[in-house]
Amino acid sequence: MANLFLLLNLIAVVSFCCVNVLAFEPSPMQDFCVADPASLDRVNGLACKDPKSVQAEDFFFSGLHLAGYTTNAVGSKVTPVNVAQVPGLNTLGISLVRVDYAPWGINPPHTHPRATEILTVLEGSLQVGFVTSNPENRLITKVLKKGDVFVFPIGLVHYQRNVGKGNAVAIAALSSQNPGVITIANAVFGSDPAIATDILAKAFQVDESIVALMQSKF
Amino acid sequence: MANLFLLLNLIAVVSFCCVNVLAFEPSPMQDFCVADPASLDRVNGLACKDPKSVQAEDFFFSGLHLAGYTTNAVGSKVTPVNVAQVPGLNTLGISLVRVDYAPWGINPPHTHPRATEILTVLEGSLQVGFVTSNPENRLITKVLKKGDVFVFPIGLVHYQRNVGKGNAVAIAALSSQNPGVITIANAVFGSDPAIATDILAKAFQVDESIVALMQSKF
Amino acid sequence: MANLFLLLNLIAVVSFCCVNVLAFEPSPMQDFCVADPASLDRVNGLACKDPKSVQAEDFFFSGLHLAGYTTNAVGSKVTPVNVAQVPGLNTLGISLVRVDYAPWGINPPHTHPRATEILTVLEGSLQVGFVTSNPENRLITKVLKKGDVFVFPIGLVHYQRNVGKGNAVAIAALSSQNPGVITIANAVFGSDPAIATDILAKAFQVDESIVALMQSKF
Amino acid sequence: MANLFLLLNLIAVVSFCCVNVLAFEPSPMQDFCVADPASLDRVNGLACKDPKSVQAEDFFFSGLHLAGYTTNAVGSKVTPVNVAQVPGLNTLGISLVRVDYAPWGINPPHTHPRATEILTVLEGSLQVGFVTSNPENRLITKVLKKGDVFVFPIGLVHYQRNVGKGNAVAIAALSSQNPGVITIANAVFGSDPAIATDILAKAFQVDESIVALMQSKF
Amino acid sequence: MANLFLLLNLIAVVSFCCVNVLAFEPSPMQDFCVADPASLDRVNGLACKDPKSVQAEDFFFSGLHLAGYTTNAVGSKVTPVNVAQVPGLNTLGISLVRVDYAPWGINPPHTHPRATEILTVLEGSLQVGFVTSNPENRLITKVLKKGDVFVFPIGLVHYQRNVGKGNAVAIAALSSQNPGVITIANAVFGSDPAIATDILAKAFQVDESIVALMQSKF
Amino acid sequence: MANLFLLLNLIAVVSFCCVNVLAFEPSPMQDFCVADPASLDRVNGLACKDPKSVQAEDFFFSGLHLAGYTTNAVGSKVTPVNVAQVPGLNTLGISLVRVDYAPWGINPPHTHPRATEILTVLEGSLQVGFVTSNPENRLITKVLKKGDVFVFPIGLVHYQRNVGKGNAVAIAALSSQNPGVITIANAVFGSDPAIATDILAKAFQVDESIVALMQSKF
Repeated sequence: MANLFLLLNLIAVVSFCCVNVLAFEPSPMQDFCVADPASLDRVNGLACKDPKSVQAEDFFFSGLHLAGYTTNAVGSKVTPVNVAQVPGLNTLGISLVRVDYAPWGINPPHTHPRATEILTVLEGSLQVGFVTSNPENRLITKVLKKGDVFVFPIGLVHYQRNVGKGNAVAIAALSSQNPGVITIANAVFGSDPAIATDILAKAFQVDESIVALMQSKF
Repeated sequence: MANLFLLLNLIAVVSFCCVNVLAFEPSPMQDFCVADPASLDRVNGLACKDPKSVQAEDFFFSGLHLAGYTTNAVGSKVTPVNVAQVPGLNTLGISLVRVDYAPWGINPPHTHPRATEILTVLEGSLQVGFVTSNPENRLITKVLKKGDVFVFPIGLVHYQRNVGKGNAVAIAALSSQNPGVITIANAVFGSDPAIATDILAKAFQVDESIVALMQSKF
Repeated sequence: MANLFLLLNLIAVVSFCCVNVLAFEPSPMQDFCVADPASLDRVNGLACKDPKSVQAEDFFFSGLHLAGYTTNAVGSKVTPVNVAQVPGLNTLGISLVRVDYAPWGINPPHTHPRATEILTVLEGSLQVGFVTSNPENRLITKVLKKGDVFVFPIGLVHYQRNVGKGNAVAIAALSSQNPGVITIANAVFGSDPAIATDILAKAFQVDESIVALMQSKF
Repeated sequence: MANLFLLLNLIAVVSFCCVNVLAFEPSPMQDFCVADPASLDRVNGLACKDPKSVQAEDFFFSGLHLAGYTTNAVGSKVTPVNVAQVPGLNTLGISLVRVDYAPWGINPPHTHPRATEILTVLEGSLQVGFVTSNPENRLITKVLKKGDVFVFPIGLVHYQRNVGKGNAVAIAALSSQNPGVITIANAVFGSDPAIATDILAKAFQVDESIVALMQSKF
Repeated sequence: MANLFLLLNLIAVVSFCCVNVLAFEPSPMQDFCVADPASLDRVNGLACKDPKSVQAEDFFFSGLHLAGYTTNAVGSKVTPVNVAQVPGLNTLGISLVRVDYAPWGINPPHTHPRATEILTVLEGSLQVGFVTSNPENRLITKVLKKGDVFVFPIGLVHYQRNVGKGNAVAIAALSSQNPGVITIANAVFGSDPAIATDILAKAFQVDESIVALMQSKF
Repeated sequence: MANLFLLLNLIAVVSFCCVNVLAFEPSPMQDFCVADPASLDRVNGLACKDPKSVQAEDFFFSGLHLAGYTTNAVGSKVTPVNVAQVPGLNTLGISLVRVDYAPWGINPPHTHPRATEILTVLEGSLQVGFVTSNPENRLITKVLKKGDVFVFPIGLVHYQRNVGKGNAVAIAALSSQNPGVITIANAVFGSDPAIATDILAKAFQVDESIVALMQSKF
């Protein structure tokens, strides 16, 4: 009986979206499903902390005011605040990132398979864009300055580029607690094992030597 | 192989709503996911009974014809029939309650964060109402008599009041197997620990002494 | 601008379930989407009333205390309270029915393609049952008396039979504002046009003459 | 920490549909949830393989070019390719079947409670049909030849019949990894235990002796 | 034919969440559904702009770096960036707000019926909290400083209070393009028409005179 | 009244997935929502045919046995059977494609933002693969022969290559009536207008001259 009562917690949480989702973690509370890494050591399949042991810290993250370190090939750094950092985000369908850009740094073309992104510029100036799907492949692009907001619809290829003279900073929210990232260059030219060179040569309509060169960079 | 075959049961159940929900309980049957409190003792994360052990009793509850005991501060009593009482409701997105009202008893203002409610009056007469969200905060209200039905949309503050001379009885269905209840007075003035008195004084625009009085009641 | 503001109402309503549902009816209110038959005369594609014109009556139905007339072939009568009777149920995912049963009347085998049903007996005694899917086709059945509750999971074939000496009455809730009904006998033996007799003869493994007899009844 | 990181995999998968679905299987990968029968032996409630151990074979099935054996009462054979055969289909909302038909064989009237079906004829000629719900019970039917495609909407009773002179072959896709099948004749006349003969006699408006005859066949 | 081709755009957008959502706006593009207020003047029921006329501005908002004016009863101001300000957010399930707080200003207790909120402090120091549902009504609270992040789960009562000496600023993301706000004090004590004083007196267990006083403030 | 009755049809259809989806097209039938291009000429926002005018042809397509013409840069041709070809697929969450491959033709790397794909080889031999998301970017690949089936999870980059000596043919099903296609090369190097060359040079870590070369091909 106690167990069944406990069972309610997860049911509550997972039914935020749809009525028919399965519950499996007992709890007398009913309003969230905080991911519990500790219990994963004991039994596979356990997802949530006992609500009684949930603390404010489970919903908390600190340090988003700190600049990321942008000395890398693309001149940008993403600081994530998703369910990996905040276990209380589990099942709640939202997360944040901070992005720092060196002057002329870029956040290279990528997709989020599970989230729309809404970005706001805190400092600096960014050129941003996304590309619609086949057959148009239309680029929708704009230059943003401090206080500007832009939306990247779910699943579409998008990017940002610092077009100011100094560093730039943005905060973006994503409509998933674990949105996923597919960086195009890495997925296509840097997979492990590699996609056959001749496939990419045909796909991108260049010599295999160029494909091999690109593959060597990732 | 047998395990994989068993696995189908939960997959079946959870995909009623959406195609991409995770299954995890093996079973040769495929049509429901009866909550299994017994298995919770053995492993956290187990949600469903082996379908082979499912019985008609898993889908059954008795006693909804019995009046609830209304001698309390609000003069009403809710008898729930949700997944805590009927394990077979797990994942199926619906539940019932019976509500008994003493003469002039009320079911105080509350929200169901996960369900719309449809109520029908079995005996007596009820004034019912719900309030729309900001900025209108419009009260939509009506007096119901025996055989009348009224709908309270998901998430909105609503209440009922017995306006007849005798007891009243209603049966209400909710669009979740675990709808949740947030009783406004209890959440705001009766939380544990209490919300700071000065916050509530500002929010409700009254003296802190009045807030303290209200907090002392919960 | 006013229009865009109005647009919020439907968005609000349809996003109760999922984040990505389309809104299309302008409104300054945001909490429901009351079906508007009047506007259907003017333009196809209009779904909701202007929230400003919504009234308590849109969420209201009367007469569920009245017995249905059961003098028919199956000895039962279903009185529905779904979105066709209560426009305010639109998008809210729940509905009711009252079922009256003559002595030994039945509610014949049927499915609800879009809803689980939870039934409670108000008067009399019912034998109820549902059948699981292939390959088990297990019948889960129970006799219910006044105050008993039983659940019929979504999509499964189920029925009720009055097993008391007098009339029986039940109220059932369904997890859809428009659950749909497929009465097996009518769909299979009474379709318009008819399914070819030889198909049904093979399917039910009887002579075509018996199939033709059954088809003649519907 | 490692565990929490692992947790992301399932969250990723299950949020394909909706934002609020529960994750419970740790993994550093994030793009699928391959069903793991082995882990079911150790703990109930485990659903997915460690993504690190996922192989191409988890997404693979062979033999769909092989004819099914149709020497049976209905003259047809369904070869399924769903999550029971392909664990990588878990949570992904799609599956296949191959159907072989002897000359004049039928795939008898049935429903899929969790899927729409889209069928294409590879060889031969089929008459296909589905029946709409109450009150119309309209039969929508067509004769298909090689290369023709037809859609059976979710939850509706449908069937196919070979109307060519030789064998027929079709491939059908279903919008669920575990669509479920309710064969009408088996569910109604062949349940275990049987539905009471008098109920079926009333429902199908025939003598109990005919019902008993039909029940004896299943 | 052209129309059918156009029809694809909305279908594309609305199926981000679930497979069975209805499309109704023709378009050769397929990746978003930008709300079109202009078309609402011509026909009710039109929701999206012709994708060919979509511009970067549809996904854009400016001014989020500007402080809101906090000289009001609660000492705070919410600047929204949702579908009312950014038509391109339509159907995409996410939005932003900026909140400015005067010293000791509060964002009073409220719920978002359709969204979880993730808030980050840009300037100053905030005490934040949310209350779990019945029966615990547990307050989960924390003091945040610059760069801290906190999560308020969907549907729960929550608030913020400036506990620093100067102004405070936060940016919050919400998991809906139109999350809705129910400010408790306004919905309960400020509805139009008012909830009967005796109901609120019973619900909050105070004299009717106190209820009347509170009602007079809203 | 008639209109409200008609309204049920769409509600029925759209609630297959979730309870809170909006209906807007009147109809006495309730089981599908056939896209109606004709009505789009009269009013924007109309999505479905009057169910009374629905015909078997609305669920029908012919010609999938015919080979596509593969004389093009990539040596492959996709023949789609989605809602653009079959209006009855509207809202039903599934579609098909036939893919023809010249010897050594490829179906170049692409994503489907709204669908998982399950492919079966009808003739010939294909090497297939998909790449997981960051940070692994693991390629999962296999060679398929006639009768083999393979799954490409939603949102992931995938491709096929003919590795046989003759033509190859596959039929693939997708878990959306309008799955969308983002061909990586076209979206990144062939957008209109083009993504700035220096962005792509940084992203792919090659000289701008190589990027310009690639851009010139699309």
